[in-house]
Amino acid sequence: MKKSIKIIASLLLATGIFSCNNSEQNKEGDRGALASNAAEKVYVAPGEHDDFYAFISGGYSGNLTVYGLPSGRMFKEIPVFSQFPTSGYGYSEETKPMLNTSHGFIPWDDSHHPDISQTNGKLDGRWIFINGNNTPRIAKIDLKTFETTEIIEVPNSAGNHSSSFVTENTEYVVAGTRFSVPIPQRDMPINEYKGNFKGSLSFISVAPETGRMNIKFQLIMPGFDYDLSHPGRGKSHGWFFFTTYNTEEANTLLEVNASQNDKDFIAAVNWKKIEEYVNNGGGKTMPANYAHNVYDDHTHTATSTMKKEVLVVDPLEVPGAVFLLPTPKSPHGVDVDPSGEYIIGNGKLSADLTVHSFTKMIDAIENEKFDSDAYGIPILNFEDVLAGTVKQAGLGPLHTEFDGKGNGYTTFFISSELVKWNLETREVIDRKPNYYSVGHVMIPGGNSREPFGKYAVSMNKITKDRYLPTGPELEHSAQLFDISGEKMELLLDFPTHGEPHYAAGIPAELIKDNSQKIYKLAENKHEYAALSPADARVERKGNEVHIYMTMIRSHFTPDNIEGIKVGDKVYFHITNHEQDFDVPHGFAMIGANNAELLIMPGQTKTLTWEPKKVGVWPFYCTDFCSALHQEMQGYIRVSPKNSDIELSWSLGED
Amino acid sequence: MKKSIKIIASLLLATGIFSCNNSEQNKEGDRGALASNAAEKVYVAPGEHDDFYAFISGGYSGNLTVYGLPSGRMFKEIPVFSQFPTSGYGYSEETKPMLNTSHGFIPWDDSHHPDISQTNGKLDGRWIFINGNNTPRIAKIDLKTFETTEIIEVPNSAGNHSSSFVTENTEYVVAGTRFSVPIPQRDMPINEYKGNFKGSLSFISVAPETGRMNIKFQLIMPGFDYDLSHPGRGKSHGWFFFTTYNTEEANTLLEVNASQNDKDFIAAVNWKKIEEYVNNGGGKTMPANYAHNVYDDHTHTATSTMKKEVLVVDPLEVPGAVFLLPTPKSPHGVDVDPSGEYIIGNGKLSADLTVHSFTKMIDAIENEKFDSDAYGIPILNFEDVLAGTVKQAGLGPLHTEFDGKGNGYTTFFISSELVKWNLETREVIDRKPNYYSVGHVMIPGGNSREPFGKYAVSMNKITKDRYLPTGPELEHSAQLFDISGEKMELLLDFPTHGEPHYAAGIPAELIKDNSQKIYKLAENKHEYAALSPADARVERKGNEVHIYMTMIRSHFTPDNIEGIKVGDKVYFHITNHEQDFDVPHGFAMIGANNAELLIMPGQTKTLTWEPKKVGVWPFYCTDFCSALHQEMQGYIRVSPKNSDIELSWSLGED
Repeated sequence: MKKSIKIIASLLLATGIFSCNNSEQNKEGDRGALASNAAEKVYVAPGEHDDFYAFISGGYSGNLTVYGLPSGRMFKEIPVFSQFPTSGYGYSEETKPMLNTSHGFIPWDDSHHPDISQTNGKLDGRWIFINGNNTPRIAKIDLKTFETTEIIEVPNSAGNHSSSFVTENTEYVVAGTRFSVPIPQRDMPINEYKGNFKGSLSFISVAPETGRMNIKFQLIMPGFDYDLSHPGRGKSHGWFFFTTYNTEEANTLLEVNASQNDKDFIAAVNWKKIEEYVNNGGGKTMPANYAHNVYDDHTHTATSTMKKEVLVVDPLEVPGAVFLLPTPKSPHGVDVDPSGEYIIGNGKLSADLTVHSFTKMIDAIENEKFDSDAYGIPILNFEDVLAGTVKQAGLGPLHTEFDGKGNGYTTFFISSELVKWNLETREVIDRKPNYYSVGHVMIPGGNSREPFGKYAVSMNKITKDRYLPTGPELEHSAQLFDISGEKMELLLDFPTHGEPHYAAGIPAELIKDNSQKIYKLAENKHEYAALSPADARVERKGNEVHIYMTMIRSHFTPDNIEGIKVGDKVYFHITNHEQDFDVPHGFAMIGANNAELLIMPGQTKTLTWEPKKVGVWPFYCTDFCSALHQEMQGYIRVSPKNSDIELSWSLGED
Repeated sequence: MKKSIKIIASLLLATGIFSCNNSEQNKEGDRGALASNAAEKVYVAPGEHDDFYAFISGGYSGNLTVYGLPSGRMFKEIPVFSQFPTSGYGYSEETKPMLNTSHGFIPWDDSHHPDISQTNGKLDGRWIFINGNNTPRIAKIDLKTFETTEIIEVPNSAGNHSSSFVTENTEYVVAGTRFSVPIPQRDMPINEYKGNFKGSLSFISVAPETGRMNIKFQLIMPGFDYDLSHPGRGKSHGWFFFTTYNTEEANTLLEVNASQNDKDFIAAVNWKKIEEYVNNGGGKTMPANYAHNVYDDHTHTATSTMKKEVLVVDPLEVPGAVFLLPTPKSPHGVDVDPSGEYIIGNGKLSADLTVHSFTKMIDAIENEKFDSDAYGIPILNFEDVLAGTVKQAGLGPLHTEFDGKGNGYTTFFISSELVKWNLETREVIDRKPNYYSVGHVMIPGGNSREPFGKYAVSMNKITKDRYLPTGPELEHSAQLFDISGEKMELLLDFPTHGEPHYAAGIPAELIKDNSQKIYKLAENKHEYAALSPADARVERKGNEVHIYMTMIRSHFTPDNIEGIKVGDKVYFHITNHEQDFDVPHGFAMIGANNAELLIMPGQTKTLTWEPKKVGVWPFYCTDFCSALHQEMQGYIRVSPKNSDIELSWSLGED
């Protein structure tokens, strides 16, 4: 035990020293490493466009950010799992259901691993998926509108971390627990963890046309921690791979107790076999409450339904479906090369990088070369599945991406570097320091059969002296490398928003022409839309008042409303009648107990207001929309609760 | 009336045409305008720092963003008036009081005009102020920590828009209503607006050492709309200037009805005279509820107090204190040049730019050359105060900044351009198109005696084709110009976050060395801090459970807790024991009904959790902190409400 503590301490110390004392040295290193044309390589002149979209997870922001490469400019923050006051997401009546869960309304999550949909193993640019790590959920963002259109909760899970990666025809988006828990949840002593707590790996089907998600089955696994995952492709299509740590099944002081074993496992799951088993009636239906939230961009409204059961599968009931590949040591990422042959285990506490062979794995399985088992799941022999190791590659490998030209690019957290190596020879070709403490790396298409090996983006955990300081709290930082040549070239540091854990990139031409510019007013099916100013009106139902309002440059209809009373609940249903690209309007009401609304052309959104004070209160447009934006305003008169003033309104005609 | 509608329509049409059809032409224009070295001019190499901080308002995000110039990279989003799931601001127990108002807890606002504190008319880099436009408030951000440390609500106001600008020794931060309302608020017909609704201009004193804000007095003004304001400086120190529109006092369809008068006013307020009047017992105390919220960075806690009265001043009671300067037409910005002599009225519906002379104004006042009055306030003659006009400068001037070298830089919304002109000759020197529909412009120090005339940043309202598309919703866009030469040079387009209405810039060296790196643990005075792991414990008070928890790489103490029951309200009081720069930890609990916490080194924050389900639930660190971050976790056992299991916890020792 003492030895382990010492190892851990020295690893931490290494991190600390590296990240605290080397800034001067690093700066000199930077200058030396910079080619003179880096400025031109990253410069996107006004009026020109970037070459790639990079979708970067927001981590503890709960969102997904959209950047351009090579400029490193942030084009949008897409709200996913968190309330977003900027647009009213999670505050407006239409979007609140998106954040519904079996635990109630949850206004936040920790978003981790975006992955773009694929067809035949290639990026198809239709959707991007991302996981909520805290309250387990998978979200889908539509890449036509760049809006979150579906969120499904994952039951029997905790710390939904080994998620949300797609199979090569987007048959499934896959989600796995990080923390094992009692399944089903129940009251039990924490120190009875070992053997009693379980992990779950969820296979969520994606309907080919609509993208609608559905939990097809959950595999109930031993009580390890499941860290990351990736799909097989090409020859390994039909398989999915998950890293594990804490195979010690410790429940306290994991920094020591979960680092005892020299090897943990990569779990290899033959999902095609389990799918067949399930399609033939296999598996067991289990009661489970979980929310399924869908946003419709014609009604502009989300609906939340609570599901009641889920199909679970015991891996022991499907022989030949699940195997464990020993892998040193507490592996973080598991990455499959474009050919589908190599399965890279990034053992975060090891100095070498482990490369498994899919062909050797299949051979070992067919020859039943099992060393032992874990709770009945066969453990293959390490040497039988190993293609080889990348020796002395660095300290603390976390994640490997691919350039499609036969090379892997692995991040090393502790030695804080990006290392390029040859997949066949496993020889190191180049290494570049990262400032500081790199987590994951992204090459556009890196998780597909056809990566686009022009740029790599490293996502670094410590920022410190990279930018002008902003007090104790700093943004995290990314670094852009040109990887088109033999050696990597550092081009640019750019700050990132939230904590980027992971990213997915795609050439701009695969998305940009499909990007929708407006919502068509004629197709607006919102229950409370006012599709012409003539439909604008105010209706009372008891103490509920529904205002059907329109907005167009530069006035609201109606713009003066009387007959509202203290104690009323006022619904502003506001329809933006613009049909030009990039003419949103906003709506805000003084003292409203939520956010404003940002309403896109053709869209209807609803804000509620419970006026507490008698008086005459203004509302206004919050998005500068024309030379007369400042004139886009109106008033609401609020009378005492017992007042007999009738509803009346002015249509803004003079 | 018909003529006015036609003018308005043609103005709108101009905007529309400009912004919809010229993209190809603009692109060619861009290329022609770009010097070949623009790439090098904006490139900040890895390891190097930007020259300037730019603080850009977030508009409907409610926040303030921090950028570097010339790179255009965003370094931080500072939460001010809105809940911010990323750090838990507005969700944690310590920060919720910051969003308290007389209307209750308000989780959003519309932040508009940041202004940096000054000493002797020069930027001193101590604080930055920003206004909440919707629920009227002024916030102060400490530029040591880059955190919001004070918010004061402004009573008798609505649409707090002509705010938050400071006098040249930060004696006052000034806030004015945009929307006039009944003062005090009361139930009255909206169409009795004229003569009955009032505006208010608030002078909020700032304590020289602590920066503590206090509403010194409110000037009750005629029922116009007050749009923007700026302080006098140098010779005009002691005065403050406010633009007005809707001097017609219309209450409906303002886009037509508030654009009838050929001239509206700039209100000139001699605040020194009113201060003297008030110090001698002048003014009237009026009942008014408004919140004053202060964050202490030793207790790491905000407190909110509700104030009960405010001092109001009738301008007619202080002769010689307030005058009206006729100014064409619905002026938006009012800007005072570095010498204090020129008062620029940016008449947004006019084609010329009006320049008033402070010397002539004083002369006219002394000679009592008053044309007429508005509700008793003297109106000066236009010709008597006019220094001159900048002829055919552009369409729709909005705002003018200064370079300290004798030039003004004015944005024109309708003709979408930035125009440089000579303050003395009022001749146009250069004009550059802006893409598209520019609102405000910022030159660092532009609102001071000593601007830093190297860069100008225009903040544009329409983005459209400037970047890769992101669906119907786009970020707004800024453009960076090099203004060091005779002609302006467009260097860079960069997207902005939220809607930037306004910005303030400052040379990096005036701030960066004072930027605080950590909070000292020894100075932590939080009521529930656990200052050593030995203080970690769990205490029950009825159904409240207080967990005093510590965190340091890479474990929580305690990390296993039992004896929590459904129906409890659990307070996690978590102290980050790191004392290294840039080692925050996060904390998240599955199903917690709020956000996570992001906790800086030395800081304590509190998250509440009301467990609804029996089970064993994990918590974890949300900010990747070391190679063993994934092991930084723990479990809480939740038993049924009637369970007799006693509180117990593990300190994580093995």
